[in-house]
Amino acid sequence: MKPTPLEFWFEFASTYTYPAALRIADVAQRYGCSVIWRPFLLGPIFRGQGWNDSPFNIYPAKGRYMWRDLERICTKLGLPLRTPSQFPRSSLLAARIACLAAGEPFLPEFVRRVYKRNFAEDQDIADANVMLACLHGLASNPEAVLAAAQTEDAKSRLRQNTTRAVELGLFGSPSFVVGDELFWGNDRLETAFEWATADS
Amino acid sequence: MKPTPLEFWFEFASTYTYPAALRIADVAQRYGCSVIWRPFLLGPIFRGQGWNDSPFNIYPAKGRYMWRDLERICTKLGLPLRTPSQFPRSSLLAARIACLAAGEPFLPEFVRRVYKRNFAEDQDIADANVMLACLHGLASNPEAVLAAAQTEDAKSRLRQNTTRAVELGLFGSPSFVVGDELFWGNDRLETAFEWATADS
Repeated sequence: MKPTPLEFWFEFASTYTYPAALRIADVAQRYGCSVIWRPFLLGPIFRGQGWNDSPFNIYPAKGRYMWRDLERICTKLGLPLRTPSQFPRSSLLAARIACLAAGEPFLPEFVRRVYKRNFAEDQDIADANVMLACLHGLASNPEAVLAAAQTEDAKSRLRQNTTRAVELGLFGSPSFVVGDELFWGNDRLETAFEWATADS
Repeated sequence: MKPTPLEFWFEFASTYTYPAALRIADVAQRYGCSVIWRPFLLGPIFRGQGWNDSPFNIYPAKGRYMWRDLERICTKLGLPLRTPSQFPRSSLLAARIACLAAGEPFLPEFVRRVYKRNFAEDQDIADANVMLACLHGLASNPEAVLAAAQTEDAKSRLRQNTTRAVELGLFGSPSFVVGDELFWGNDRLETAFEWATADS
């Protein structure tokens, strides 16, 4: 029996999703499991809970802890980390591009590049030029992808993903969905793959 | 060099602290590290953030996820779990008793018993008789301990612990403090011990 595919739900502004996005392809290969990459927005979900900002900004003790914890995690993984001068950054444009690239072989590499720009290079992922650089060498026509990201089709795809995320009970990023099971957090990546491959 | 002792900060009403409290002594032994058991109250800290209830009740999606996640964790550890008919339960009395028992060899076993009553047996840990049962065979005079828990001394010790928890930047339970480093969550137990023993 083939393992259940794992859905990887990611918000580009999310700090803990940076290590998850950078390592998920390797971990998936180790478990022999396929990954479906699903961009979504946390902003509308947070607003539904009464938050107009990241909980890491609203609750300072939690925020201080998160940055230190993320630093320890990245050090352990050998990932560069530069605390972004702006947090959270608007992930709207990047997420729309990722929606358009659903099913494209280059999507995982595009996603990794976006996270590195945000969390290793302190660059604004809302900037069109940063997105063009992330698409460079991946999409045959980066300018066309950028133009397509402004269309109603791209906007609608992202809205549908976010609606689906709410239906699945998501409330944070990264989240991993395996059949009816939800796993939340970079810490749960291996647990989710164990679940996906348990009966295979 | 001896490993840095690890401070284990626990709130008796906290769900994820149940597996942490039940396994910490074994994990500590594996790492050859000593544990200082520190009861505190999350209620005042949550109220400081504007919450008058557990965030798992305030944010239903997060709550639903937590109960399922806790179930998976307990199954994996072979720990019985019965969702408490009341959540969160008042941990005031249990925490005061634990403060009085600081340094007593029976403290860890008392703590484990309280968590089991709450999360495996659905018993009210605010009930004096439940506390007497938890102290039975541990304290030489359970009734005297219960009486002492009502004194200003016991109340003051718990308030001091909670004040110290805030100073340390704690915002959730379980938390583990190793020197200047804070680790939050049952998932971080091994990481915290690794940190404590890294230079020894």
